[in-house]
Amino acid sequence: MTIDKNQLENELVKFYKQSDVPAHLQESVLYSLTAGGKRVRPVLFLELLEAFGVQLEKAHFQVAAALEMIHTGSLIHDDLPAMDDDNYRRGKLTNHVKFDEATAILAGDALFLDPYYVLASCDLPAEIVVALVRELSFASGSLGMVAGQVLDMEAEGKKLNLAEMERLHQLKTGRLLTFPFVAAGIVTEKSEKSIRQLRAIGELLGLAFQIRDDILDVTADFDDIGKTPGKDVLEEKSTYVSLLGLEGAKNELSKDLTEVKKLLTELSNFSGEEIFKLIDSLELK
Amino acid sequence: MTIDKNQLENELVKFYKQSDVPAHLQESVLYSLTAGGKRVRPVLFLELLEAFGVQLEKAHFQVAAALEMIHTGSLIHDDLPAMDDDNYRRGKLTNHVKFDEATAILAGDALFLDPYYVLASCDLPAEIVVALVRELSFASGSLGMVAGQVLDMEAEGKKLNLAEMERLHQLKTGRLLTFPFVAAGIVTEKSEKSIRQLRAIGELLGLAFQIRDDILDVTADFDDIGKTPGKDVLEEKSTYVSLLGLEGAKNELSKDLTEVKKLLTELSNFSGEEIFKLIDSLELK
Repeated sequence: MTIDKNQLENELVKFYKQSDVPAHLQESVLYSLTAGGKRVRPVLFLELLEAFGVQLEKAHFQVAAALEMIHTGSLIHDDLPAMDDDNYRRGKLTNHVKFDEATAILAGDALFLDPYYVLASCDLPAEIVVALVRELSFASGSLGMVAGQVLDMEAEGKKLNLAEMERLHQLKTGRLLTFPFVAAGIVTEKSEKSIRQLRAIGELLGLAFQIRDDILDVTADFDDIGKTPGKDVLEEKSTYVSLLGLEGAKNELSKDLTEVKKLLTELSNFSGEEIFKLIDSLELK
Repeated sequence: MTIDKNQLENELVKFYKQSDVPAHLQESVLYSLTAGGKRVRPVLFLELLEAFGVQLEKAHFQVAAALEMIHTGSLIHDDLPAMDDDNYRRGKLTNHVKFDEATAILAGDALFLDPYYVLASCDLPAEIVVALVRELSFASGSLGMVAGQVLDMEAEGKKLNLAEMERLHQLKTGRLLTFPFVAAGIVTEKSEKSIRQLRAIGELLGLAFQIRDDILDVTADFDDIGKTPGKDVLEEKSTYVSLLGLEGAKNELSKDLTEVKKLLTELSNFSGEEIFKLIDSLELK
């Protein structure tokens, strides 16, 4: 890891350390922002920039922070009683259990609205900022994450086929995992064609993450994943494991990760040692 | 009214009529977007542009739509059981009663995230779009509307003084009512000084709206305001009426509206007949 993790953590909380933000809102947002997230998405973005030879600057950490803010907001809302009704996340109480439901709703709302202020305050050319705003909204709103969450709700107790499940996950988690790839292309002013390639790689990696999640839900225990395992089976959710079997899902994961690495090596001016390490770390034995 | 209201309504629903948005999400968002809102904020913005001599174009209606989307999202979340727990809004069932809580949470989330895609897709110079994104996020997130909502929750059952109450309302409703003024200044590329003046006028008008709301809560009936009146008294909320008395509140409203009109006439190259009509219509007998 060559990324300055402290700088990322700093940018992530900076917005909420302003005295203008009411204390109670500060407390609840910061609780979730610092609840031990692995920072997969922002680190991916920053590593990709480095792989393209970019000298990292404050603005890049701000873009990374904006992305993680939206991700965190979505976790807070996903955990709400009306949604997945989870009491634990990353081994800690979920936001609405630690505080209350109204606070958790507002903390999530804040984490959806504030990142655009952060993006619009970045020291980057205005055209690049506009493209980033557009892509982040595309990834998170009714064309992305929120749409996926709606499909996920509707899928409860239903049997999905593989295509339906892929669509669901591509929206719900895939889009925000694809953002680091597209955003790295935007920031480095790549051609439209290169950005399309980056988007395809991001989508494939997003898929791999979901397959991995589904496998861990049946093979891991609470300490491994910081939340109650076995929930998918209990809720009779369609998962890659239920559709492909455990071995089938593991093979699919391995195949996807190999393909992601292959596609990355085909990018021009890309030297991503750290990215390859990160991808290898996703393999399951 | 010289504004093409149809064009505004069109731009407002256009995003959600895309086939990519899941049907259930479409339905619930469109239910609230077309539930009879008076479009105060977007109309103000468009009228202000006309008053500055701008020939209205599609992009301006898109900015207006983005603003109304955020306002609508905030109403959906405000009405939730964990928040104000309202069953009616504008004489119709609230979103979570018509659909369910999870759907209402996600519809609100969508209406917070999607407007930034709309803004970033506008045919306006990139610098102007960035400034609009920044101002809309400032008005709606932890420095604006969401902060005000948190303060409002905390104020329940407490006695606020006039300064505390003004701060609460300036954030909760004032910021989004100020946005049309600041945004009109941004779009017409006014000087920083002029934008400061516009912001001050917007804040004063925001205050007037709140005072008016507080008066109507004690003087109007369900049909007048489309929701249950008398809620403030029931919940022992501090309001302009409880602090200033009914007559005092009415005088304050009248004084504010007169001042808003005076400040508007002092702006250069401003000819806002329609705006003055709109302001006069806020007077209560």
